[in-house]
Amino acid sequence: MNKMTKRFILPEDEIPMQWYNIQAEMPNKPMLPLNPKTKTPLKAEDLYPIFSEEVSRQELNTTDIWIDIPEEVREMYKYYRSTPLVRAYGLEKALGTPAHIYFKNESVSPIGSHKLNSALTQAYYCKKEGVTNVTTETGAGQWGAALSYAAKVFGLEAAVYQVKISYNQKPYRRSIMQTFGAQVTPSPSMSTRAGKDILTREPNCQGSLGTAISEAIELATMTPNCKYTLGSVLNHVTLHQTVIGLEAEKQMAMAGEYPDMVIACFGGGSNFGGIAFPFMRHNINEGKKTRFIAAEPASCPKLTRGVFRYDFGDEAGYTPLLPMFTLGHNFMPANIHAGGLRYHGAGTIVSQLLKDNLMEAVDIQQLESFDAGMIFARAEGIIPAPESCHAIAATIREANKCKETGEEKVILFNLSGHGLIDMASYDMYLSGSLQNYEVTDEVVNKNISELDSINI
Amino acid sequence: MNKMTKRFILPEDEIPMQWYNIQAEMPNKPMLPLNPKTKTPLKAEDLYPIFSEEVSRQELNTTDIWIDIPEEVREMYKYYRSTPLVRAYGLEKALGTPAHIYFKNESVSPIGSHKLNSALTQAYYCKKEGVTNVTTETGAGQWGAALSYAAKVFGLEAAVYQVKISYNQKPYRRSIMQTFGAQVTPSPSMSTRAGKDILTREPNCQGSLGTAISEAIELATMTPNCKYTLGSVLNHVTLHQTVIGLEAEKQMAMAGEYPDMVIACFGGGSNFGGIAFPFMRHNINEGKKTRFIAAEPASCPKLTRGVFRYDFGDEAGYTPLLPMFTLGHNFMPANIHAGGLRYHGAGTIVSQLLKDNLMEAVDIQQLESFDAGMIFARAEGIIPAPESCHAIAATIREANKCKETGEEKVILFNLSGHGLIDMASYDMYLSGSLQNYEVTDEVVNKNISELDSINI
Repeated sequence: MNKMTKRFILPEDEIPMQWYNIQAEMPNKPMLPLNPKTKTPLKAEDLYPIFSEEVSRQELNTTDIWIDIPEEVREMYKYYRSTPLVRAYGLEKALGTPAHIYFKNESVSPIGSHKLNSALTQAYYCKKEGVTNVTTETGAGQWGAALSYAAKVFGLEAAVYQVKISYNQKPYRRSIMQTFGAQVTPSPSMSTRAGKDILTREPNCQGSLGTAISEAIELATMTPNCKYTLGSVLNHVTLHQTVIGLEAEKQMAMAGEYPDMVIACFGGGSNFGGIAFPFMRHNINEGKKTRFIAAEPASCPKLTRGVFRYDFGDEAGYTPLLPMFTLGHNFMPANIHAGGLRYHGAGTIVSQLLKDNLMEAVDIQQLESFDAGMIFARAEGIIPAPESCHAIAATIREANKCKETGEEKVILFNLSGHGLIDMASYDMYLSGSLQNYEVTDEVVNKNISELDSINI
Repeated sequence: MNKMTKRFILPEDEIPMQWYNIQAEMPNKPMLPLNPKTKTPLKAEDLYPIFSEEVSRQELNTTDIWIDIPEEVREMYKYYRSTPLVRAYGLEKALGTPAHIYFKNESVSPIGSHKLNSALTQAYYCKKEGVTNVTTETGAGQWGAALSYAAKVFGLEAAVYQVKISYNQKPYRRSIMQTFGAQVTPSPSMSTRAGKDILTREPNCQGSLGTAISEAIELATMTPNCKYTLGSVLNHVTLHQTVIGLEAEKQMAMAGEYPDMVIACFGGGSNFGGIAFPFMRHNINEGKKTRFIAAEPASCPKLTRGVFRYDFGDEAGYTPLLPMFTLGHNFMPANIHAGGLRYHGAGTIVSQLLKDNLMEAVDIQQLESFDAGMIFARAEGIIPAPESCHAIAATIREANKCKETGEEKVILFNLSGHGLIDMASYDMYLSGSLQNYEVTDEVVNKNISELDSINI
């Protein structure tokens, strides 16, 4: 029975006052997003029709290292932040590893994941700028739930397009969004041109984040006084999530340790960047040697098997062209249960960092992710989200290496959310009916080759 | 935007070292449980065949005001305790009340409710006494999930009888228990005599906590090296839950306030007693005038419409005879979604306290409970368990009275658990298909009159 401190929580006045903007410190700045028609670099004003003006400016801000968290947002953070940093003694014991494993527990936010950090922020800026309605996409529904509640907090109406496979796999996330008062539509739907187009081509399409984004953007641009909000991928979303890593940095100091590895699951990159960037700045500025490991699903392997190219952020091509590691915006991921990771591309910052070898990526098969989730659940009592299971799997791989070498490495991972709405997935795992999905080179190459038509 | 502190968390060394045993300070001690055959007062040894010896002694301990929390249990508490005390500014604003509303957020425990506080304790004592297997009953599954994880922590095998209506209404709680490695059986089942008997009488019986208790006790007494554990009702369970109120007392002091009212939902009484008793001791010893309000479902109204009588704790009559407010152990509650409140009787301590007017009780209809849950969810972002919705409804009633009178009363309620596994219930609420259940005097009187056969 270990009597050392298990949980580290910051006093309220230690909750960060600013987010960390890694764009200002990167050795190589990310390449600029392009206007798809003119192929010229985007200006913040070009984003105003879609996003709130403040996040549009944040998106392209490559100069300010620190950006103030608005008082109104920080006051809402105080209801659940700091989230605990927990020493995973139970997991260490279950693995028999000498590694010191810590996790940042974002699952205790009111809506059960880290997504609220950016949802509150985006909803606040919209409110401040006189917007009355917000739209968004959601996969597993973590982002949609967060945005639905954040909209309620700031008195906005919310419309959410949820990827159809998740809408059906996880009906209770829809109920959660509806409980918070949002309108939820399975995507692809017949309510937008983008949805109609894909349903015409493929009537049984189960959807993807890329398609849901297209639908939400289309609704936002067609509706007066309405803005679109995004749950990951973009720079400003990752910026808002750095509150995670900034807190974790102080909490690791409370524990008297510094991570040798920082691990997070990877969908679009905001969860990963959120916990990694505040530590990565010490690699960039002070020559620290922490490893940063993004854990992506093997069935959607943009970091490990994609190409670095300009691509659209959505399926229909409504977004600017983004320089990203991508599988092509027409890539349709397999129906894995980690709905939040079913996205074809990586954000521009992480893409540049991966290109520059400032981070690493590993791919995890679905069964390995749930194996890891089960070990963690039984060791720590928390059922992890299928997305978070990928981070746990990567953590277990590294912890097992430490067991072989005897090294007491310090591993920090982000438990981005709980899996209580994903119990149907655990049920399938327990009954042996979950499967792995292989992506053939043929499929990867076909989708990537279609990018040639973008012609930059 | 209120800049006052929203969340109060105790430093790790302030987590209580002892539980509070109100039995030692009650003006009138609870009447003694009786051996059903001899009708003589029970001794701790009489409970050893069913429970661990330590909790058997705690059950009848009317002398020690403070009982040490074992170091091993407290070390496990540190992973999630203290739970936050939260000032519900959002709810106050939604209601437009001058009342100051606080809630103790037990929903952030790993398994999502307060139940873990006693589950860890009971599992620990079993382990210490060489037990290898534990059994229990569960309604909604909060207790079963807690016991399943606690058993895993201390290396015990767990078998859980889940009330059939909840097993079917909330399949994911079963998955959670199975994820933690427990064996789960819907009750009534054909695996016990008690289950067979009731199924013979009533083949479509949807079960009750009383029946599930009978089955779990029967399995425990038939299995070598196996003990039964209980999630509420009994004195020792309530004792373990006083960690909630003891923390809340310190946290209210951090907030610079003291509650005029303490409110909790009521199933068997451990959640209510857990938050209420540490404050009630100041009423008993120092003449404080805090009101303690138990919120029970109108469909299972033992406190508001039951009688104070000796009755069995279970349906089959395996338990000792307990002096309790009861609807009769054959009372079959309606299929409300607050499965954890579907129990015919109240623990002996709370029954005595109610008799002595040291506490109050209110009954809440199902629709009022969900109305309240929706208001809370939209105001605070947390989906409350259907059980906890009863406490919220009682809180809203009192807060609305303050609105009328203009009084700034301080209300503290226990958010015993989240409702993320209960989204099917919210779905029904949202679609208008949830209903109220009336209990006729005829039904109440019939079941109570059957108690005459107990003949004390």
